[in-house]
Amino acid sequence: MPTPEPFAGSSRFDGRTPAELRPVALERGWSMHAEGSVLISFGDTRVLCTASFTEGVPRWRKGSGEGWVTAEYAMLPRSTNTRGDRESVRGKIGGRTHEISRLIGRSLRAVIDFKALGENTVVLDCDVLQADGGTRTAAITGAYVALADAVAWGRRNKLIKSRATPLTGTVAAVSVGIVGSVPLLDLCYEEDVRAETDMNVVCTGDGRFVEVQGTAEGEPFARAELDALLDLAVGGCAQLDGLQREALEGDR
Amino acid sequence: MPTPEPFAGSSRFDGRTPAELRPVALERGWSMHAEGSVLISFGDTRVLCTASFTEGVPRWRKGSGEGWVTAEYAMLPRSTNTRGDRESVRGKIGGRTHEISRLIGRSLRAVIDFKALGENTVVLDCDVLQADGGTRTAAITGAYVALADAVAWGRRNKLIKSRATPLTGTVAAVSVGIVGSVPLLDLCYEEDVRAETDMNVVCTGDGRFVEVQGTAEGEPFARAELDALLDLAVGGCAQLDGLQREALEGDR
Amino acid sequence: MPTPEPFAGSSRFDGRTPAELRPVALERGWSMHAEGSVLISFGDTRVLCTASFTEGVPRWRKGSGEGWVTAEYAMLPRSTNTRGDRESVRGKIGGRTHEISRLIGRSLRAVIDFKALGENTVVLDCDVLQADGGTRTAAITGAYVALADAVAWGRRNKLIKSRATPLTGTVAAVSVGIVGSVPLLDLCYEEDVRAETDMNVVCTGDGRFVEVQGTAEGEPFARAELDALLDLAVGGCAQLDGLQREALEGDR
Amino acid sequence: MPTPEPFAGSSRFDGRTPAELRPVALERGWSMHAEGSVLISFGDTRVLCTASFTEGVPRWRKGSGEGWVTAEYAMLPRSTNTRGDRESVRGKIGGRTHEISRLIGRSLRAVIDFKALGENTVVLDCDVLQADGGTRTAAITGAYVALADAVAWGRRNKLIKSRATPLTGTVAAVSVGIVGSVPLLDLCYEEDVRAETDMNVVCTGDGRFVEVQGTAEGEPFARAELDALLDLAVGGCAQLDGLQREALEGDR
Amino acid sequence: MPTPEPFAGSSRFDGRTPAELRPVALERGWSMHAEGSVLISFGDTRVLCTASFTEGVPRWRKGSGEGWVTAEYAMLPRSTNTRGDRESVRGKIGGRTHEISRLIGRSLRAVIDFKALGENTVVLDCDVLQADGGTRTAAITGAYVALADAVAWGRRNKLIKSRATPLTGTVAAVSVGIVGSVPLLDLCYEEDVRAETDMNVVCTGDGRFVEVQGTAEGEPFARAELDALLDLAVGGCAQLDGLQREALEGDR
Amino acid sequence: MPTPEPFAGSSRFDGRTPAELRPVALERGWSMHAEGSVLISFGDTRVLCTASFTEGVPRWRKGSGEGWVTAEYAMLPRSTNTRGDRESVRGKIGGRTHEISRLIGRSLRAVIDFKALGENTVVLDCDVLQADGGTRTAAITGAYVALADAVAWGRRNKLIKSRATPLTGTVAAVSVGIVGSVPLLDLCYEEDVRAETDMNVVCTGDGRFVEVQGTAEGEPFARAELDALLDLAVGGCAQLDGLQREALEGDR
Repeated sequence: MPTPEPFAGSSRFDGRTPAELRPVALERGWSMHAEGSVLISFGDTRVLCTASFTEGVPRWRKGSGEGWVTAEYAMLPRSTNTRGDRESVRGKIGGRTHEISRLIGRSLRAVIDFKALGENTVVLDCDVLQADGGTRTAAITGAYVALADAVAWGRRNKLIKSRATPLTGTVAAVSVGIVGSVPLLDLCYEEDVRAETDMNVVCTGDGRFVEVQGTAEGEPFARAELDALLDLAVGGCAQLDGLQREALEGDR
Repeated sequence: MPTPEPFAGSSRFDGRTPAELRPVALERGWSMHAEGSVLISFGDTRVLCTASFTEGVPRWRKGSGEGWVTAEYAMLPRSTNTRGDRESVRGKIGGRTHEISRLIGRSLRAVIDFKALGENTVVLDCDVLQADGGTRTAAITGAYVALADAVAWGRRNKLIKSRATPLTGTVAAVSVGIVGSVPLLDLCYEEDVRAETDMNVVCTGDGRFVEVQGTAEGEPFARAELDALLDLAVGGCAQLDGLQREALEGDR
Repeated sequence: MPTPEPFAGSSRFDGRTPAELRPVALERGWSMHAEGSVLISFGDTRVLCTASFTEGVPRWRKGSGEGWVTAEYAMLPRSTNTRGDRESVRGKIGGRTHEISRLIGRSLRAVIDFKALGENTVVLDCDVLQADGGTRTAAITGAYVALADAVAWGRRNKLIKSRATPLTGTVAAVSVGIVGSVPLLDLCYEEDVRAETDMNVVCTGDGRFVEVQGTAEGEPFARAELDALLDLAVGGCAQLDGLQREALEGDR
Repeated sequence: MPTPEPFAGSSRFDGRTPAELRPVALERGWSMHAEGSVLISFGDTRVLCTASFTEGVPRWRKGSGEGWVTAEYAMLPRSTNTRGDRESVRGKIGGRTHEISRLIGRSLRAVIDFKALGENTVVLDCDVLQADGGTRTAAITGAYVALADAVAWGRRNKLIKSRATPLTGTVAAVSVGIVGSVPLLDLCYEEDVRAETDMNVVCTGDGRFVEVQGTAEGEPFARAELDALLDLAVGGCAQLDGLQREALEGDR
Repeated sequence: MPTPEPFAGSSRFDGRTPAELRPVALERGWSMHAEGSVLISFGDTRVLCTASFTEGVPRWRKGSGEGWVTAEYAMLPRSTNTRGDRESVRGKIGGRTHEISRLIGRSLRAVIDFKALGENTVVLDCDVLQADGGTRTAAITGAYVALADAVAWGRRNKLIKSRATPLTGTVAAVSVGIVGSVPLLDLCYEEDVRAETDMNVVCTGDGRFVEVQGTAEGEPFARAELDALLDLAVGGCAQLDGLQREALEGDR
Repeated sequence: MPTPEPFAGSSRFDGRTPAELRPVALERGWSMHAEGSVLISFGDTRVLCTASFTEGVPRWRKGSGEGWVTAEYAMLPRSTNTRGDRESVRGKIGGRTHEISRLIGRSLRAVIDFKALGENTVVLDCDVLQADGGTRTAAITGAYVALADAVAWGRRNKLIKSRATPLTGTVAAVSVGIVGSVPLLDLCYEEDVRAETDMNVVCTGDGRFVEVQGTAEGEPFARAELDALLDLAVGGCAQLDGLQREALEGDR
């Protein structure tokens, strides 16, 4: 890995202000087969999120009356600047992939009422078609919309029988980081590789936290820096929450 | 698998005539990272083909002065009507995936002059985003265009030094089959599952064969049927050849 | 791989005429354990085919009243000129092995009436003890005889209860190819590595096609060449059909 | 998983106050073979941490003049209440194992000066012999001490040639969580399964953050709760830092 | 592997006489979770043996009224002088590990009455924490004690219902070998690498053989040498049998 | 596994006396490709042993001036009474296979002078075509002959340059066991499943031991029984040694 050049100047790599998201687009119903699907983009990052709704639950949950939601994340081999080996060809899933799949699953389960879902399973597949930083946060944000569509599908098709809604809230995620000592919202790849501190934050629509994962890539970070990053992230998630609501308002 | 209902009526499932292709679209330059990329669609089938150009060749070919071209095919889990397990999660690649990856690689190598390519490697990744029959033939047809772009990139960037062009011809592929005793061109999924005979044909732009793979799904097929299918396929490949040329004419 | 020297002279490497098979031998009952078994040789190619008959079917077929036939192909490590790694040691099955196993299974299923077989399974194991070209076609031709013996065993042991015979026809396979512009039947290894076009054809005893798989190894092939190869293959399969019948006539 | 009974009463499960660590012991030099080794216990949690110092670095780092530090975490099958399958027997590493191994490696690399380490590699193996909550934080805390011993060994044996010390600081980790609405330090297993929010915090000896990983197991958590947890964690890490220093003061 | 220097002098590497065991310690109840557990040491070799008692048996044994006992052996990566790769990371278990796991299982099953055990399973995990020769024999000797404790636990908890005791005898194991032409008992690592012949012997408390595994590492061995080794081993096992009884007499 | 009926009568299952081998046949030169090959049969047990001679040695041995000999054992899926899964399909090698491969390799290495072999490698592949007990001992006995042929090939082809012969002796193996309290030589499958004690013995032509592996399948065995088995085995190996010499005397 070549050492990135220092990040100079007061404005960001792509001209944004520190607290500005990249352009975000949510294309619902991208797939003809899936019960819910969204092609989400955060700038040049594009993730195809599909939600597969099936009756029944994994064996360990049978008879519980409760449903299940899980997620799988993957990157296409040439979604990145240099081609990566396929994990199917290597015969095993890497640690990063595992970690992100688990993060997405936990984030969505935080807003699901499993009793209301009933013994149904929703699997979210988040496949990165093009990567430019923030793939995991785009995946969570898009997967929520795909999940909402799949849940609506389940209700229309009478597979969800409960009166209560299985969705107890909304969830979105964004990355924040400190680049050249400046706290920034929604890092693109060029910022990400220069970040001294990198944090992914998952919030509900009412501004509470589902996940906070902060890592010092270089110098350890001080409490004040952590606080500044959390402020930025909460603001970013609130904006994403608005975009999700807009996307879900349109008829499908 | 439910038994499909008999295919009735004289016109096709989607109103096409027997020798008619589905609408084909080739979106070049879909990926910002890859040296060549195409999002190809044959009707509802959509395959993202990226070509990754790298200097150097696999170890067994080093010092030969010749290049290499290879391909990997995969389906996103929910590209199909019901979700399939990820091969990365199962830890191994299935026979069908292997078979199609090899077919795509062989088909493209048929139009490559490895001496002219020099010691460079092009890897074609064909990822099915949505499947509705004919994914392998769409993959070959799209991969050729991505390959042509990657070769042009290699020449622009002086990595290909030979005066001769590495591309000795063009290649496209189409499926044909017998459904309800009628030979049809470019089967969609609903036709494919009803087909008595299923054939994939890969042709060069000058109408010769690179691959012919015909399989009796039900009754064995007679020589006359085989001949009729080959006629249809040659015609279909000629049309695809025209579409490839058109796509490659536009500036990128 | 060293480049083979050009194939010179009008007669073949081993003195055969273009449309001549190598000596074919079928040794039935080679294994004391299997319900059907044949050691087949096509010249120096030797494949041990065993058919294992078991009551019951895979889970996805239970309760259907229908049986199942499947096949696995493999090569002993030193069946070839240079030793190959064991697939069990590498921990995965290669694409070629997968492809051939699937081809053998499809070919045999083409002549099976699953209703008549009842809920029984026959697994064909085709292990190449010595390879000299044409291993997959020898495997199919031998496996048919082993299958016929296993079906007879199933009937003798009252596991097949239907009056109808599960075998709806016979099946044999042969390779053909163009070497030095001459279409040849049943290529040995030395011919196979020189072939410009290589084709495997699976026919039923009544001369219809089950599988046609043709590949241009060098130059793409013209329609007239394809036709000549198909003619040769049909003739070769008819001869093999005769040899299978002879083998099956002898008491066991 | 049985639902745990509500956690009642004002004092903790094992009588501790909310901000109290379990008894921590660090047994240095536990292994006769490793260049550094510590058997660490946080209450009933026991992790054997060994540091293996070797000359040379992984291929991707050769010639850089910089060293490398990495970690692997694993649990013995019966370190937990019910026996878990061995990952070696299952043939793959689970997501949780991957995630924790990566966390430990990152945490230690945060206090390493790779230039000063020179082209040497230290591998930290953290094997959980007995688990009672907090295994990953005990692993990090113990691994730091083993790493310090391995670095000292490398200097004594002239494999580290730089005058600068490769250790730029100290690092320790602790878990915190909200149980029954009360923020608690260093959760044992019984508290962990009842926790509404669970957080692992890795700090340097000067009180800055290397990693913050907070997860809402039930209800999302508010900013004030997050702040209270961070306060507890910083205090806990400071105590652990003192214990590490004490352990390292003794002659070995 | 460096060639070891010749083993000189009349006394052994560590001062023992030829027929002397290393100091053996058996620490019962080392694990808070397992139904039986022992940390056994043979000199510097330390193996943690845990016995996990569960109701039920593997599928192939269901309904037989008989129980099952099995074992898994593994080495921590840095239990040896140079770090070994984790088998979980390599994705497969090596031949040596397999072989030893099977040996331990067979040895313990030799003293189990499966009818008396009833449909219960005991899994013995033998994890080598530190290796200095004789790990498999230490594992067998320790596992017997853990097994005895697990069986006692099963009886106390009414899961073993038979009046007959499931343990039909005791079992212990020791290594012997010829080093510098001298037959020696209980080889440490330094002796083991110099041994011309290496033998592992598993005996019951009444002096009969459960397993004898002798291997010529250099020269083949004569019958007289084999006899001398067997004499030594029988004596060593008798001493170990005494130590096992002592350990089991103490209250737990 | 059904419990076998007690073995009654004074003569053996197949009429042999206790110290009688089954008919043994050694068919040299069975494979056209391998440098050495033997189809060996011990009664109905048939093992194809091929020896592959290649220049060069594994990486860990390069520059040592010494060669290497290794072995791989496998069973064809239907070599046994009921079909076993292929290890290549399961994706991993079982413990028994591993164990036997290692045993064969060690046995052959016992009669090899690696200096005289020079930096060449011989791989022995022992594939069981049909199993009726004693497959590992037949494999060792046959592999020795294939190895001798490969060594002769290496010398004829000037790849072995040393004057000294790489073969320092001969090696053969046989099974012995106690069935119905009677010690028997060379157990067939029906005897093997009834054996109380089962032992495999590998001897050199001069009557010394290379490996002794005895296992109590039921009751532990006494020293007198062990002695009787060793006597039988030594006699059996001497007979096999004669048959090996005879086989190797014929010109090839």
